[in-house]
Amino acid sequence: MPDAEILAVGSELLGTQRVDTNSLYLTGKLNVLGVEVVQKCVVGDDRARLANEIASALRRTEIVILSGGLGPTEDDITRDAVAAALGRTQYQDAAALAAIEERFRRNNRKMAEINKRQAMVIEGAEVLPNPRGTAPGQWIRTEDCRTVMLLPGPPHELKGMFEDQVQPRLEAMLPKQCIETAFYRIAGMGESDVDALIAPVYSKYTNPVTTILAGAGDIQLHFRARCSTTEEAKSLLAEVCPQIEKLLGDRIYSNDGASLEETVVKLLRAKNGTVAVAESATGGGLGARITSVAGSSACFMGGFITYTNEMKEQLLGVSSEVIAEYTEVSEQVAVAMAKGVRDKTGVGYGVSVTGEAGPESGSGQPVGVFYVGVADERGAEARRYQFPGDRARLRQLGTQWALDMLRRRILSAG
Amino acid sequence: MPDAEILAVGSELLGTQRVDTNSLYLTGKLNVLGVEVVQKCVVGDDRARLANEIASALRRTEIVILSGGLGPTEDDITRDAVAAALGRTQYQDAAALAAIEERFRRNNRKMAEINKRQAMVIEGAEVLPNPRGTAPGQWIRTEDCRTVMLLPGPPHELKGMFEDQVQPRLEAMLPKQCIETAFYRIAGMGESDVDALIAPVYSKYTNPVTTILAGAGDIQLHFRARCSTTEEAKSLLAEVCPQIEKLLGDRIYSNDGASLEETVVKLLRAKNGTVAVAESATGGGLGARITSVAGSSACFMGGFITYTNEMKEQLLGVSSEVIAEYTEVSEQVAVAMAKGVRDKTGVGYGVSVTGEAGPESGSGQPVGVFYVGVADERGAEARRYQFPGDRARLRQLGTQWALDMLRRRILSAG
Repeated sequence: MPDAEILAVGSELLGTQRVDTNSLYLTGKLNVLGVEVVQKCVVGDDRARLANEIASALRRTEIVILSGGLGPTEDDITRDAVAAALGRTQYQDAAALAAIEERFRRNNRKMAEINKRQAMVIEGAEVLPNPRGTAPGQWIRTEDCRTVMLLPGPPHELKGMFEDQVQPRLEAMLPKQCIETAFYRIAGMGESDVDALIAPVYSKYTNPVTTILAGAGDIQLHFRARCSTTEEAKSLLAEVCPQIEKLLGDRIYSNDGASLEETVVKLLRAKNGTVAVAESATGGGLGARITSVAGSSACFMGGFITYTNEMKEQLLGVSSEVIAEYTEVSEQVAVAMAKGVRDKTGVGYGVSVTGEAGPESGSGQPVGVFYVGVADERGAEARRYQFPGDRARLRQLGTQWALDMLRRRILSAG
Repeated sequence: MPDAEILAVGSELLGTQRVDTNSLYLTGKLNVLGVEVVQKCVVGDDRARLANEIASALRRTEIVILSGGLGPTEDDITRDAVAAALGRTQYQDAAALAAIEERFRRNNRKMAEINKRQAMVIEGAEVLPNPRGTAPGQWIRTEDCRTVMLLPGPPHELKGMFEDQVQPRLEAMLPKQCIETAFYRIAGMGESDVDALIAPVYSKYTNPVTTILAGAGDIQLHFRARCSTTEEAKSLLAEVCPQIEKLLGDRIYSNDGASLEETVVKLLRAKNGTVAVAESATGGGLGARITSVAGSSACFMGGFITYTNEMKEQLLGVSSEVIAEYTEVSEQVAVAMAKGVRDKTGVGYGVSVTGEAGPESGSGQPVGVFYVGVADERGAEARRYQFPGDRARLRQLGTQWALDMLRRRILSAG
């Protein structure tokens, strides 16, 4: 199986602030295809240096993936450097130019002369269309069976191009391996707790390979069986997966890659349920996560951002006495907010979040304490959560807990 | 002035989760000394590959810094690879071994035999003591005036060693240099438009160096002047920056690195202003961005997420006739939402967003059309925006336009 090397291009990735994260995404995708990333490099906007590094990479590694440096300016040197490293010329590709011009026309913008640079294509390259941005990518097979690809730097463009254009080409090129995967997403548990629970099972197997990835309150479990036939790979998974599912139970919220917000929207739509939110510490982040799902308008009505106590009282009808007695970060206030939003909007499920995201406490409750409330026709309840982390992580966790509590409430409605 | 290259060693840095962050610290320290990092690389635990990369790095770059791979196991290959690349032998250094043994004794631990590997020193290297860990570092000057250093991977060990041992050596070795920087963030313009506007100025100068970085509706401009005195560097910036500032005017929202939401919160706090939001297409994302800023509770009161037309009518008092006549994605509805949230909450500024984020249009307006409204004591206005992009990008752009329109409105209030 060939190895891969990733070259990220751009002087901005050589400063003190930004790291190349595209390579993490690319590595995940390549690993699933059975390709290992053996080296990665960041090179600045320096034609000679980049051309030199590309030539070195091609001597030692079969697949070389470049990201970034495909923009219209003089700084965008990837095309030139690859052409130089391969000793090939470039030409202006009429179809690529037409696509760029069409994109500007559609956006009612005038195309600058320099954008024509983005239609320059290396001799022998296949153009990879980029519906998400201006710069097309390129895919090149060399005489000595190396593969070089030029992908755009902006992550959403790179991901889209990889999925639409690169993955099918790699699958066609790579030796066929039968890989079967199982994938679970889990909310409401820490990484080490998940590991402690399932290690007795997965550690008995070297095939499938188990990978545990941890995000903020969100664990991903991958099982990858590699065999010479699909049947063998499937039967390996059929042995391991039921054991894992039994141990984790309803902590597993998805087995198809769906995010927690996608899962919640799917559940609500399936049951013709509706939801509205009442957010304090998360400031709109819960609504933003739900509405990030296309089609959420079928079940998400809206809600209230009540960042101050006055807003909690005025917009949601939370009583000032309750706030005075229990503070705004309390079970009582979370319940009142969830009931309040349900009453004001007429939805099936009202969900509330109130908490201390820091850096300082406003309510007197410790930073990291959150309450999440859910109200439905059966009544209302709230739960307390406390975790460490900075403001951004705590706010993310707050939306995670709220979504998971809503998910369980919907499931429990039968 | 010599350039530097950083090689991070370790297969764990080639997975899907971890990135090398030591290089960010090292880059900051080197830049202050006037040294640019021109390339950085991650190499796995592979002797031959690493030796090869070190040899290449030494051909092209004056200073080569390695981090990691100094542990006691077979996987810890940095010493061997450097020795191989330089064609030098290693010996067991008595003082280094004594320091390692002493460290184990102090911690009441028995030293394993393999830890002796950590006392192996490359011929001609200076040993860099490591009071924070077991592995000493090494500093090597080659015959052809290259500098190679081997630093430990754990960040606190690496930082301590850099400050205690490396920095004084570099200061003694390097010609004295002074660097001054200017930094601007710009909203409301595309990358190529910014470039077309300012290229006539910056392209006249090779010092300061100009870098343009683009995000979703957010451009960063960096200028870095390098001279032998601070006065010279400052006077170069004083020549270039006012020309740039004049061309960009109030498109520049910050010159201290502050994000757009931080800028808005700072402006509001400085003027004792208050704001509330009314969000449709962004679903809470605008509120979430404002409240991501610590201290935003001084100016942000809350708001409404009105994802459906019923919610727009019921919570904000938008008239159903206006929606029927102009659709919910219209100037009229954006104005009514901004006025509505201001009336319902009593804030100084009401900000609204309504738009078509796709993938399909609900209102009949094309996907990508957004209206942003602002209301204050002087009245209300709304603007139309249209850009390409997927749902996530459009929603991000929607919050960006809303924040920028609010910023301009606050500024225009004087």
